[in-house]
Amino acid sequence: MKTRIITISREYGSGGIEIAKKVAAKLQLQFYDKALVAEIAKQTGFDRNFIEENGEYSPARSKYFFNLSQTEMASTGTLSIYDQIYIFQHNIITELAEKGDCVIVGRCADYILKDRKDCLHIFIHSAIAQRAKRITEEYKIVCEHPEEWLKEKDEKRQLYYKNYTDRIWGVCSNYHLTLASDKLGIENCVDTIVNLYRSIG
Amino acid sequence: MKTRIITISREYGSGGIEIAKKVAAKLQLQFYDKALVAEIAKQTGFDRNFIEENGEYSPARSKYFFNLSQTEMASTGTLSIYDQIYIFQHNIITELAEKGDCVIVGRCADYILKDRKDCLHIFIHSAIAQRAKRITEEYKIVCEHPEEWLKEKDEKRQLYYKNYTDRIWGVCSNYHLTLASDKLGIENCVDTIVNLYRSIG
Repeated sequence: MKTRIITISREYGSGGIEIAKKVAAKLQLQFYDKALVAEIAKQTGFDRNFIEENGEYSPARSKYFFNLSQTEMASTGTLSIYDQIYIFQHNIITELAEKGDCVIVGRCADYILKDRKDCLHIFIHSAIAQRAKRITEEYKIVCEHPEEWLKEKDEKRQLYYKNYTDRIWGVCSNYHLTLASDKLGIENCVDTIVNLYRSIG
Repeated sequence: MKTRIITISREYGSGGIEIAKKVAAKLQLQFYDKALVAEIAKQTGFDRNFIEENGEYSPARSKYFFNLSQTEMASTGTLSIYDQIYIFQHNIITELAEKGDCVIVGRCADYILKDRKDCLHIFIHSAIAQRAKRITEEYKIVCEHPEEWLKEKDEKRQLYYKNYTDRIWGVCSNYHLTLASDKLGIENCVDTIVNLYRSIG
């Protein structure tokens, strides 16, 4: 089956978004990162910044989350706002995947689309020192201890992923391809993904 | 720094050895798999089959293994045979890396050479159903429940890796590149590694 969708999960500061953008441009695929946040904000009525902050970092899911029926999933009123956001994300990502060829960044898209055969699931990571350099120099994030700040961010993403997928974040069996952007370089990561997307047909 | 060495770790039945062999042939690098086993057998005096079976699957390390001094590491007489084999493996892999450009399969080479900057560390994995098919059809392994047999093999490798490296096997941060051979295909895995080895210089 022809691969149509690329999901890119990434450690914060690894350059994953830059890689995803360049891949989408080279392959002329729809790119969903901020657009996805905007859509979730629109559908939920929450502020975009709130979605950005809590759509990958919410503290916990409801205990009974995995036991919800489809009907209960559709009627989100009784759930915590974090669970509600996850469900909206889930539904929007599922719909986007139906719409057309695309690159989707983060938000458990690898898990949400795990049963589709037309996806290439990718994870981008990098050593923490290089990530600290990138967030300071490129993202212009000002903080006293960038490595500590990143570790906290990693932990939150790990927890979020565990909460909503019951899988461990960054374990290679969840992905078809994982790349260390610090060792390989951004352009080589882009070329590798583009070549594989074209080769596996 | 120019990359000179490729280490390839792999799930049993993922085609990792076939990929490693093809990469070594294409890049004209020394290939160490059986040759490494033979060298360890020669140096330790143990049988090759024994090394093959226990060089990646030994049940436990001595409790004080990580606290050994270099001198104690050199005088292995007081250690269990599993620890002795690991130490010989460690020393032989370190020497091989000094000798020249090469591809080394398994045996914690990614960990043993982790501090060298001239290595590309790779992990090959595959869904268990495809691995079961491969070991039955290609390796001609006869067993009633190949998936169960593979799971046991995975667990032993995980334990061995944990014992001697204190790291978790198959976590992508241990590697620069991980590839799902079932999704991507053997030839695409080979080409990806060859291209990256050449590109990162």
